[in-house]
Amino acid sequence: MLRAAFEAGYETWGFNRSEAGAKAARSDGFDVRSDIEAVLGRAAESDALIVIGVPMPALDAVLTDIRTFAPQCAFTDVVSVKGPVAETVHRHELSAKYVGGHPMAGTSESGWDASTPDLFKGAAWAVSVDPDVHAEPWTRVARLALDCGAVVVPVRAAEHDRAVARISHLPHILAEALAIAGAGGGELALGLAAGSFRDGTRVAATAPELVRAICEPNAEALLEVLDDSLRVLTAARDSLRDTDSIAQLAEAGHDGRNDYDTFRRWAITGITPGDHDWLAKLAEAGRRGGVVESLD
Amino acid sequence: MLRAAFEAGYETWGFNRSEAGAKAARSDGFDVRSDIEAVLGRAAESDALIVIGVPMPALDAVLTDIRTFAPQCAFTDVVSVKGPVAETVHRHELSAKYVGGHPMAGTSESGWDASTPDLFKGAAWAVSVDPDVHAEPWTRVARLALDCGAVVVPVRAAEHDRAVARISHLPHILAEALAIAGAGGGELALGLAAGSFRDGTRVAATAPELVRAICEPNAEALLEVLDDSLRVLTAARDSLRDTDSIAQLAEAGHDGRNDYDTFRRWAITGITPGDHDWLAKLAEAGRRGGVVESLD
Repeated sequence: MLRAAFEAGYETWGFNRSEAGAKAARSDGFDVRSDIEAVLGRAAESDALIVIGVPMPALDAVLTDIRTFAPQCAFTDVVSVKGPVAETVHRHELSAKYVGGHPMAGTSESGWDASTPDLFKGAAWAVSVDPDVHAEPWTRVARLALDCGAVVVPVRAAEHDRAVARISHLPHILAEALAIAGAGGGELALGLAAGSFRDGTRVAATAPELVRAICEPNAEALLEVLDDSLRVLTAARDSLRDTDSIAQLAEAGHDGRNDYDTFRRWAITGITPGDHDWLAKLAEAGRRGGVVESLD
Repeated sequence: MLRAAFEAGYETWGFNRSEAGAKAARSDGFDVRSDIEAVLGRAAESDALIVIGVPMPALDAVLTDIRTFAPQCAFTDVVSVKGPVAETVHRHELSAKYVGGHPMAGTSESGWDASTPDLFKGAAWAVSVDPDVHAEPWTRVARLALDCGAVVVPVRAAEHDRAVARISHLPHILAEALAIAGAGGGELALGLAAGSFRDGTRVAATAPELVRAICEPNAEALLEVLDDSLRVLTAARDSLRDTDSIAQLAEAGHDGRNDYDTFRRWAITGITPGDHDWLAKLAEAGRRGGVVESLD
């Protein structure tokens, strides 16, 4: 995020609670420190837009610091799940300045060395249009996303969380299960594994604590879609056992992937942040696959 | 296969039951015809090695033709599952000349236009070392695999089928289920979908009839591992519901992927086809991750 914003021409500085992490960034010329008071003090002085990029369990501490050192700053986050973050922000009485965000981009690697300014190019970046969102911070957050090369998907927190349970958290769950099944076959199975196994387990290479921090806060939505998938898989198992056929699964799965392959984003135009009903209109457009591509 | 063998310097010709398919190959300069008698007649005259590349349901007809027109030719196959193919070959009384094969490579596309001579470069190519395999055809099949740029994994049919259920067939099943879950989220979910969904559903783009032809003949082994995975996923669901945690799944999945990432093939040496116990020795080496890299 820091690299991408810097590359986009923003004045940037950052915080990392680990001095080693901060040092790694500094060695590449970025002003990153492990002194939260100093970093947020500078944010307060310069009316900066704060981007929170911590796993969910660390959010409370960061919000306490923002409340203390930079309570007037607009802020967003790149924490996966949006409902629980919004609730936590609300508990800290910081909602007026907050706009939730979630860039749909990442790698299975972590740490400063894994960072790249190009991560968000062409990505979808969810930006909250919940009813309590204000136009001024929304525009700043959306502009940052666009400046980083992404397109903005306007979405309400609860709908976002249900959607990402399907396309981001369930993929993690299934990848873990597949990796377990493959490794259970020993060296012979791993030696025969090719593209389908490699791709299907790619995200299982993610650090387990990060997978947990991404998926567990979205338990409710994830449980719903995981139950759906268990029903689908159980039906396929029964069909294979009883009739030697996986026809229904194979047809429906192919249709689903085809929906994905033929899906095309379309550009939302004519809705200005702050106008009457702008939040509801953007939410409705986002629901139908619309994205904000510019703010002019 | 035809392209790869041609590129490796073999004299090649082929059969396709569809004249359109044969014509597409001919237009690229390959001698491919839809007249099975002529194609197999030439094979019989020149003592060719026949490679069967048809889906399982078409196997019976091809074996009938081989029995009729080229009963003395050595032959192999690139049909996914090995046990059912070997049984069918046995029924046609062609086992003495047969050596099962399975190159672990492919794309989700089909047809002549999807073919490339480089498909097998660096791939694992399973070659059967079942007790009834003869050294002469085995060596020819292994040499073809090596000449196409692959390494040979010696494996018994039943063990192969259990292994590929884990690393090739289960990935298809889970990819179909994931594609169904994603598409079930509508345009919002598809619009937010990024790398984890794209990679996790890649093989769901495969034609459903091909997925069925690959998976269904391996029903017994696939059912076993699918049941295992249903247990793993159900345990994760229960843990998420009851304790808000997917720790066990995330740890075990990460370990599994790590086994895959750190797996290294090793070169089998000192076993000559035809020597005492060569089949058992090769099977044992393959089981432990060994591959044949040369036949000198």
